[in-house]
Amino acid sequence: MAVARVTEVVGSSDKSWEDAVQEALDRANKTIRGLTGIEVTKMNAHIEDGKITEYRSHVRITFILED
Amino acid sequence: MAVARVTEVVGSSDKSWEDAVQEALDRANKTIRGLTGIEVTKMNAHIEDGKITEYRSHVRITFILED
Amino acid sequence: MAVARVTEVVGSSDKSWEDAVQEALDRANKTIRGLTGIEVTKMNAHIEDGKITEYRSHVRITFILED
Amino acid sequence: MAVARVTEVVGSSDKSWEDAVQEALDRANKTIRGLTGIEVTKMNAHIEDGKITEYRSHVRITFILED
Amino acid sequence: MAVARVTEVVGSSDKSWEDAVQEALDRANKTIRGLTGIEVTKMNAHIEDGKITEYRSHVRITFILED
Amino acid sequence: MAVARVTEVVGSSDKSWEDAVQEALDRANKTIRGLTGIEVTKMNAHIEDGKITEYRSHVRITFILED
Amino acid sequence: MAVARVTEVVGSSDKSWEDAVQEALDRANKTIRGLTGIEVTKMNAHIEDGKITEYRSHVRITFILED
Amino acid sequence: MAVARVTEVVGSSDKSWEDAVQEALDRANKTIRGLTGIEVTKMNAHIEDGKITEYRSHVRITFILED
Amino acid sequence: MAVARVTEVVGSSDKSWEDAVQEALDRANKTIRGLTGIEVTKMNAHIEDGKITEYRSHVRITFILED
Amino acid sequence: MAVARVTEVVGSSDKSWEDAVQEALDRANKTIRGLTGIEVTKMNAHIEDGKITEYRSHVRITFILED
Amino acid sequence: MAVARVTEVVGSSDKSWEDAVQEALDRANKTIRGLTGIEVTKMNAHIEDGKITEYRSHVRITFILED
Amino acid sequence: MAVARVTEVVGSSDKSWEDAVQEALDRANKTIRGLTGIEVTKMNAHIEDGKITEYRSHVRITFILED
Repeated sequence: MAVARVTEVVGSSDKSWEDAVQEALDRANKTIRGLTGIEVTKMNAHIEDGKITEYRSHVRITFILED
Repeated sequence: MAVARVTEVVGSSDKSWEDAVQEALDRANKTIRGLTGIEVTKMNAHIEDGKITEYRSHVRITFILED
Repeated sequence: MAVARVTEVVGSSDKSWEDAVQEALDRANKTIRGLTGIEVTKMNAHIEDGKITEYRSHVRITFILED
Repeated sequence: MAVARVTEVVGSSDKSWEDAVQEALDRANKTIRGLTGIEVTKMNAHIEDGKITEYRSHVRITFILED
Repeated sequence: MAVARVTEVVGSSDKSWEDAVQEALDRANKTIRGLTGIEVTKMNAHIEDGKITEYRSHVRITFILED
Repeated sequence: MAVARVTEVVGSSDKSWEDAVQEALDRANKTIRGLTGIEVTKMNAHIEDGKITEYRSHVRITFILED
Repeated sequence: MAVARVTEVVGSSDKSWEDAVQEALDRANKTIRGLTGIEVTKMNAHIEDGKITEYRSHVRITFILED
Repeated sequence: MAVARVTEVVGSSDKSWEDAVQEALDRANKTIRGLTGIEVTKMNAHIEDGKITEYRSHVRITFILED
Repeated sequence: MAVARVTEVVGSSDKSWEDAVQEALDRANKTIRGLTGIEVTKMNAHIEDGKITEYRSHVRITFILED
Repeated sequence: MAVARVTEVVGSSDKSWEDAVQEALDRANKTIRGLTGIEVTKMNAHIEDGKITEYRSHVRITFILED
Repeated sequence: MAVARVTEVVGSSDKSWEDAVQEALDRANKTIRGLTGIEVTKMNAHIEDGKITEYRSHVRITFILED
Repeated sequence: MAVARVTEVVGSSDKSWEDAVQEALDRANKTIRGLTGIEVTKMNAHIEDGKITEYRSHVRITFILED
């Protein structure tokens, strides 16, 4: 049966945490195949002048290891 | 004074985690009365071909036990 | 080098958890200067008649202490 | 050998957390048989005008499932 | 999309923790349909005269809620 | 909607942990208005000559921030 | 400067968790000198016929190691 | 002195969690040299028709980084 | 009522984690009487040449303190 | 008996984590009296060009509230 | 194979947390043989007049149990 | 906006935990570019003949993923 690997990535966005997750996923798709699932483990943000300038979503990504 | 119960439910949606919470709440409303609160404890997702096909929100639901 | 402080705030909204975070941030901006970051630590909600009437986002806010 | 189930209940009282646990236990006894143990997992309270008006004890209850 | 529920059960066995998980699963199958997954959250045991007399596996069981 | 703040206080008493919580609450009432809830997060004690001389209750206090 | 040791003890009582802590402390005083502090880490209970028959307080005890 | 890396892998098996750990280890040996240790962090399983069809062992693997 | 103590032991075996637990229990029986329960808190292993050479089970052991 | 408060501060230094704790303590001494203890809860650092440019020590500070 | 025991000790020092760990280790060496490892689990300190007067390092010590 | 990755490394040193962190960082710099931060998650050590022979610092390293 297949063996999977779990890796942790931090996506960022100036729009929302949901978009930051998508950024992380888009980047992962560039170099990883066989993605099966993600889990959001932390949502934080950078603030400047009282405004959120960078949403950051910490994401654990699971993908199948090819033989 | 009232006694409440806490139960854990996992809602899913192909739109967003917020919608998956709503799905969980809609289903709970079918069989449970007296809901007072929810807490989102985990947000994960299933991925196929590099795309999120199923958002999953784990939700703890509190409701008053009737006499 | 600068010393920062971390404080915990709970924002609420009848729209969404993301809006509840914004409410918390807006309130913090009224009395605190030098905000550098936030982290969402808990998302819960109050329910009445089966509907979410109040989204609550627990937020840890970091800000630089002025000399 | 027997199989047990664990469920989470929140008892409330205007007297004390110990009494709130008892309220939770009394309510559980109305509908569940075969209780073997409890664990207090959280003690919080509602406050009005600076006074505790409702003690809340979160209790995990274990009971044997009958065949 | 389907909504699932998570419940916690404690299976016991005089053979092994793996067998205790199976006992929990067998009991769940008697009353629950639509099981999709389990997670072992705790493994403990009762001891008498220096020997393990009862293995106990705490298991979180996920199952699809039917409409 | 209102924004609340959470602060952590440690009450002490030579009588009991329940009294130590009350001490913490009494002190909070001197300087804070709008208290809505508390949660007991830790109960420890100082011991001298084999006797508890100071019960300490760690309490998270939530209160509404006024505009 | 002094070095302390931390040990974990479970006291039981048919009266209350506070009394169960006292039982643990009384027993510790029989064999240990130099106790400086305790922390209650868990409160559970055994139930028979729907009634608490044994309160159990899990207690971490700190004491100074003599030279 | 040597520097090690820790990576997380999920092995699966239709036999047991112990076998799923072995699957994870076998796969790791294909691409990684210098393995020194593993830790099992989670044991879950997929269920179909009331039977465990896939045991999954989450494993943290430590290995020495070569110069 | 009886007071119990909890101590932590790490058993090892070249066969399995279940056997490592038994090794820990066998060793405890040599010097401790009145054992009532154990809990497995961690399962790790030492690896050499890609093979598990030593299974290690971390076990919390509870035993009654004699008067 | 006295009531204490716990607050969280993040000190930074270009020398070490120990120095960053001292920075946090020095800043706290400017505005707070009656400090009784600290606990280091997190040690992280900012890196530029492969070098640590800012050590950050997260510190929980306890101080007695004056009447 | 060998069975090890884990015990928790708190060392103190007026110099640093690293020195407090050494104090704990020195004391352990007086009465325990076969030490194989330590882990620092908590670093706190006592403060007087705004200065750290006692660094405290909480240390878990592992040692082989002799036959 | 940039996407970062988080990886876990264990540095060792015969001098101190601070030096072990530096060893981990030095090794990371050999193969990774774009490091932005580290967090120390665990400090343990190997002991022989009552002396620390190897300090080990577990470090989470964050670095920007290049396009």
